[in-house]
Amino acid sequence: MIPFEITILGTSSALPTTSRYPTAHVLNVRERFFLIDCGEGTQMQLRKYGIKFTRINHILISHLHGDHYFGLIGLLSTFALIGRQADLHLYAHSELPELLKPQLDQLMQECSFRIVWHPLNFKKEQVLIDTEYLRIVSFPLKHRIPCCGFLFQEKHEELNIRKEQIEAYNIPLREIHLIKKGADFQRANGQIVPNHVLTFPKFKARSYAFCTDTAFLPELQVVLRNVDVLYHEATYDKSLEKQAESTFHTTSVQAAELAKLSKAGQLIIGHFSARYKSIDFLVDEARTIFENTLPASEGMNIAIPQERIKNRD
Amino acid sequence: MIPFEITILGTSSALPTTSRYPTAHVLNVRERFFLIDCGEGTQMQLRKYGIKFTRINHILISHLHGDHYFGLIGLLSTFALIGRQADLHLYAHSELPELLKPQLDQLMQECSFRIVWHPLNFKKEQVLIDTEYLRIVSFPLKHRIPCCGFLFQEKHEELNIRKEQIEAYNIPLREIHLIKKGADFQRANGQIVPNHVLTFPKFKARSYAFCTDTAFLPELQVVLRNVDVLYHEATYDKSLEKQAESTFHTTSVQAAELAKLSKAGQLIIGHFSARYKSIDFLVDEARTIFENTLPASEGMNIAIPQERIKNRD
Repeated sequence: MIPFEITILGTSSALPTTSRYPTAHVLNVRERFFLIDCGEGTQMQLRKYGIKFTRINHILISHLHGDHYFGLIGLLSTFALIGRQADLHLYAHSELPELLKPQLDQLMQECSFRIVWHPLNFKKEQVLIDTEYLRIVSFPLKHRIPCCGFLFQEKHEELNIRKEQIEAYNIPLREIHLIKKGADFQRANGQIVPNHVLTFPKFKARSYAFCTDTAFLPELQVVLRNVDVLYHEATYDKSLEKQAESTFHTTSVQAAELAKLSKAGQLIIGHFSARYKSIDFLVDEARTIFENTLPASEGMNIAIPQERIKNRD
Repeated sequence: MIPFEITILGTSSALPTTSRYPTAHVLNVRERFFLIDCGEGTQMQLRKYGIKFTRINHILISHLHGDHYFGLIGLLSTFALIGRQADLHLYAHSELPELLKPQLDQLMQECSFRIVWHPLNFKKEQVLIDTEYLRIVSFPLKHRIPCCGFLFQEKHEELNIRKEQIEAYNIPLREIHLIKKGADFQRANGQIVPNHVLTFPKFKARSYAFCTDTAFLPELQVVLRNVDVLYHEATYDKSLEKQAESTFHTTSVQAAELAKLSKAGQLIIGHFSARYKSIDFLVDEARTIFENTLPASEGMNIAIPQERIKNRD
């Protein structure tokens, strides 16, 4: 099975606790690893959960509060120490390289890889990456400082060929490319073999969205429509809605409302305030609105299964 | 008992591992906490091992390699978030505030405490702190970049009074101060009561030294003479002496030689290269030279007991 798999490395809000680390997620798409946020200790968490450093070529930083990027300089330093060669693509606020400049200047003197900076757009949606297999879109959130959410959408542009049919119909190699794109095949005798006879049904395109830190934004339901897994901050419980509002955070109930509005498959809540020893009641509150809610935890792994589309058009 | 107690928070060298964190130690002297180095994740380790953040008023940074200071900005940020008011004294290379400047400028806008920077001297010994109870001395080590070791020496300037004797001899309050300083007491009838009748023997002055990162420097035996606990890096085993030399690090055997030369009470070795899964054989090697050697580990606590001097002069 081709992986589309999220590993959560940190679930704390600004203050880490004895059991919660600052924010960082890793998404594994076809063994390419995307690191989303990089709180202090991310490199230790990556090791702890067995994520291969060398597979990370893209890092996305939602915003410039320390609990979302203080681990970056340590990770870059480790990349330098282990002799990384590959370009590293960094998607972040354009001020981040300035914030780290004196440290980066020092680091880059002994560095064998290049950082390619991609400034985020905090005014509107932006396609960050669009390949044959994956599309990544950033979209503005509403926090005390500029902040973006990220949507990762798998793409299946080509159909998988049924090899036995290719042999049965003696299809020449030059036609394969067209069939993968959806074309039917015309035999020498003029008979048309429909595409669905020659190919498997497509896989469903899997998706994952990362929304932290932000006030409750019901309008996100448009960009989040039908997302398989929605990670959304739930810094506070329902009783602290006013505090959530004034600090531009979300309650667990609001996160659940957004999951419901978006028709998400599953909601994972995280970024918990340090005041909560147990977050069970935040989960219970969320489930009154959106049943399929799970609390994020350090090391949590969510592998979205690969499924074929049943009804082909 | 008045504590003089070391807690080790990290034992890795430049690359952390699944079980080893970058360097940080805490020394508790009379419930005042001194943080020595502050590698990435130090604030999480402090929480994990129950060290009270608010008791830390002094941070000493040996040198500006990332594994010794990348956790500082996160810790300062947490101090700001929890509303710290007390001055924080930071002893480090004068370049450190420059390295962190853009981040500090941002942090300090919302900060309720002041950082007092104290530049270290990398050319010669320097007394950093000298109070009634404690003296801290920095001394140059020999690394690829300027680096200092630190010696913490307890002080007992005053004697403890035997209260029952004060009552028995009806000693007036104004004399107590002099007796604490070592004076005898002259009674109204001219009789001299010797000081040792009126006071307890002094406690031994406890000491702890922190030496990392450095090449083997036998001349340190002078400043380290009779230290109770010597923490010394042992990045490599004996077979890698050449590599230790070229990278300005120390082998476990060399660390033990220094402990022996210094007549240290105990040697703790740490700052282990990531290549070692087990460091048992580094300890075994060291013990062939200096028997009382222990390997540092995360969370290790070394409380030096308080003992009274037996023979009084």
